[in-house]
Amino acid sequence: MKQGLQILGDFKNCRADKVYFFDDKVLKKEAEKIIKKSGFEIVDFCSHKFGGGGGISLVFLVSESHVAIHTWPENSSLNLDIFFCNYSKKNEMKARRAFEMFRDLYKPRKVMRKNIKRHY
Amino acid sequence: MKQGLQILGDFKNCRADKVYFFDDKVLKKEAEKIIKKSGFEIVDFCSHKFGGGGGISLVFLVSESHVAIHTWPENSSLNLDIFFCNYSKKNEMKARRAFEMFRDLYKPRKVMRKNIKRHY
Repeated sequence: MKQGLQILGDFKNCRADKVYFFDDKVLKKEAEKIIKKSGFEIVDFCSHKFGGGGGISLVFLVSESHVAIHTWPENSSLNLDIFFCNYSKKNEMKARRAFEMFRDLYKPRKVMRKNIKRHY
Repeated sequence: MKQGLQILGDFKNCRADKVYFFDDKVLKKEAEKIIKKSGFEIVDFCSHKFGGGGGISLVFLVSESHVAIHTWPENSSLNLDIFFCNYSKKNEMKARRAFEMFRDLYKPRKVMRKNIKRHY
């Protein structure tokens, strides 16, 4: 059976600069650096900035599946999704590296993390 | 604590026409119909068609978070993600409706489904 892995992270009470919760252009640049450094190849991108002081949503399609980010500036919190197919130690290492780099960027006081196996 | 819900579906041995595994334009149209009918508002979109007989990946950012689809034509299988914030009966109903409509479209012989609570 073919397997992928999805790492879901909920980052709460983050100490990162507010710019990373509000500014989709700034976050796009930082996230691109993280995703590329981790070893994923970006193939497409979409984003949205919510009005009325809301957060930002960014999704990077990568050659191994996707990375999605939703920010909640009112709570200094973040939902992070890193989904990759072709389950292997190599891809798992990439995803773990990306997760750690996003954690370093956002500096959450609390992290709720789940690893979900996906089948295809 | 603010909560969202993420419905993860792995559809195996689907009986849908192959066009829904290969053709990103056709799937985009069908998926748009499903997402709108469910009550979600689409705010951005990205997609990728993999070469060499590979599948297609589509992500719709919706005002309530995202819907992601990855197809695997070689296995007639699909990974579906429906993530919405503002956990409420109303949004849960939208997500369930969307899930059921995607199941009707792909006609999987086997469905592996997980509901994951997200915090923000």
